[in-house]
Amino acid sequence: MHPIWWEDGKVVLIDQTRLPHRRENICCSTYREVGEAIRGMQVRGAPALGVAAAFGFVLAAREYANLSRELFHKRLDEVATALAATRPTAVNLFWALDRMQKVAAEYVGTDPHIIANELEKAALELATEDRENNRLIGRFGLQLVCPNACILTHCNAGALATAGYGTALGVIRAAQEAGRVERVYVDETRPLLQGARLTAYELLEEGIPTTLITDSMAGYVLQQGMVDLVIVGADRIAANGDVANKIGTYSLAVLAQANDVPFYVAAPVSSFDFQLTNGAQIPIEERRPQEVTHFRGQPAAPVGVDVFNPAFDVTPAEYITAIITEVGILKPPYKVGIEELKVQSRMKDGNG
Amino acid sequence: MHPIWWEDGKVVLIDQTRLPHRRENICCSTYREVGEAIRGMQVRGAPALGVAAAFGFVLAAREYANLSRELFHKRLDEVATALAATRPTAVNLFWALDRMQKVAAEYVGTDPHIIANELEKAALELATEDRENNRLIGRFGLQLVCPNACILTHCNAGALATAGYGTALGVIRAAQEAGRVERVYVDETRPLLQGARLTAYELLEEGIPTTLITDSMAGYVLQQGMVDLVIVGADRIAANGDVANKIGTYSLAVLAQANDVPFYVAAPVSSFDFQLTNGAQIPIEERRPQEVTHFRGQPAAPVGVDVFNPAFDVTPAEYITAIITEVGILKPPYKVGIEELKVQSRMKDGNG
Repeated sequence: MHPIWWEDGKVVLIDQTRLPHRRENICCSTYREVGEAIRGMQVRGAPALGVAAAFGFVLAAREYANLSRELFHKRLDEVATALAATRPTAVNLFWALDRMQKVAAEYVGTDPHIIANELEKAALELATEDRENNRLIGRFGLQLVCPNACILTHCNAGALATAGYGTALGVIRAAQEAGRVERVYVDETRPLLQGARLTAYELLEEGIPTTLITDSMAGYVLQQGMVDLVIVGADRIAANGDVANKIGTYSLAVLAQANDVPFYVAAPVSSFDFQLTNGAQIPIEERRPQEVTHFRGQPAAPVGVDVFNPAFDVTPAEYITAIITEVGILKPPYKVGIEELKVQSRMKDGNG
Repeated sequence: MHPIWWEDGKVVLIDQTRLPHRRENICCSTYREVGEAIRGMQVRGAPALGVAAAFGFVLAAREYANLSRELFHKRLDEVATALAATRPTAVNLFWALDRMQKVAAEYVGTDPHIIANELEKAALELATEDRENNRLIGRFGLQLVCPNACILTHCNAGALATAGYGTALGVIRAAQEAGRVERVYVDETRPLLQGARLTAYELLEEGIPTTLITDSMAGYVLQQGMVDLVIVGADRIAANGDVANKIGTYSLAVLAQANDVPFYVAAPVSSFDFQLTNGAQIPIEERRPQEVTHFRGQPAAPVGVDVFNPAFDVTPAEYITAIITEVGILKPPYKVGIEELKVQSRMKDGNG
């Protein structure tokens, strides 16, 4: 399952707000439409946001390819700023735009049509790379999954949150392929129910035994010894290993530790923000009160109540047993391993 | 606000499944209708279940008052068994039925019509006593509330969960009357949203600044230092201080401890089950999968997914800072204080 792809010069994406009851595609012809789809969470998930932003950038390059070379690059700068402003927490969005801008910069002085072609190639490469990275994350993560594993996950870090295969669900898919999964418990993940709507849907499609619970039941399931490991994705990882992820992840990590259950984060290197020394520096997006006061359009609270709706939280590194990336498994102390990742990724940037 | 009362020989209750958007009363003429209202959660909350069961018992006594004395008591035994079978976790239900049975037994050999009158008096007394107890709980609990307190609560332990005033919300009401409440954070409390629908509604009616959050946000709110204390109700408390309460309470207690925030339980002595040495012996009700997969008829999950839907969890005593009752505040080690409560309550039973 791929949530987003490039087709006939357009960006097509599965409207994730409609799943699982309706599977409808949205076709974006402009970067503005891509931006709207990101804001409206029709495409979501940190790695998928990177892919969406990259494809959006290509649409802009096509749109502005008839401008002068100077104006073309000026417009691309504006587009990068506009796309970067759609959502603040997942770093993959900024990472992808940065990578696309570097490609554009590399070809400065060239015909914009040629640059647009190169950008298209780069965006397709980025999407392919993301899928490959997730396979590698799955292969590394498999080492951490015992036979007959009962696994708890939160939100959706699946094929739908990436270019395909998934990060946390990539590990679960790899474990399923290896015959190691007994059951996956899925937190429904209020307010937008990505667990109930997306993760349960993906797992059922794979034929994996799946049990849906409310977020408030995860503690009980852990306390009762029903879970061997917890695995989640990440929206941004600081240099000390603090992890921003969907709201509720921090609670899960604390509850896992209180019950001696390992807590794993699966994420590509593009989710690391090497510039941030710790998670307190990660901006936490706050979303509309209606997401909380309503449940799939049905009002669930008295009119006029105040709402606090942070979309993410930060799990301190001390609660994380290991971080699974496409280049290997990081264990505490994370600073050392993440510093190495930073050096490797700069070398790669330098070589690329 | 009273959720249940006796009117013209019938039991009237606010249909809590309709709140906050519609305020409709249900009028029960038979104990069977009361049983259905309990099962359907039109009346809920441990102390309110005790009151409902007592009133239901009176309806049965009126219904069977024309039978022979022997058959009358036999029927009442059957009614007590039937009402006790409606919900398994809250002990107040069994406690109230036991108390009513004792009244019936006291008058054995008397005209059933006279016994029915005595039972009506006993049930009304039980309801009045519950309201008075909640005022006392509020007064004791006030000692634990600092000025400008930001308080987090879960589910509904309010007027709607009792005969009036509330247990956890009784403390919050007392604190509000004393000018000590800055804000109350309310967990929405999936799956049935008693926090969003009932607690937010009660607090807004009192003019208390109220912020609604999803259950998954409680950890973040605690981590950010936004909360001075957590206070919840109880469905059953074991002799060692372990507390069964609405699913998600355990998670909240662990998260409060991880963030050095005091975690209080407010409950009348009728919520203690002195026979159980620890919380593992408390039966945990599992409810219908549709509560998790749907909200007000709106599906939120793929068809065919398995669901685990425990309605309660058990918070080990070690996570509880204090238990507030109508006779005082219990602090660890709870065994000692609860043993004293047991002795006192047996003496009271003996004298009554």
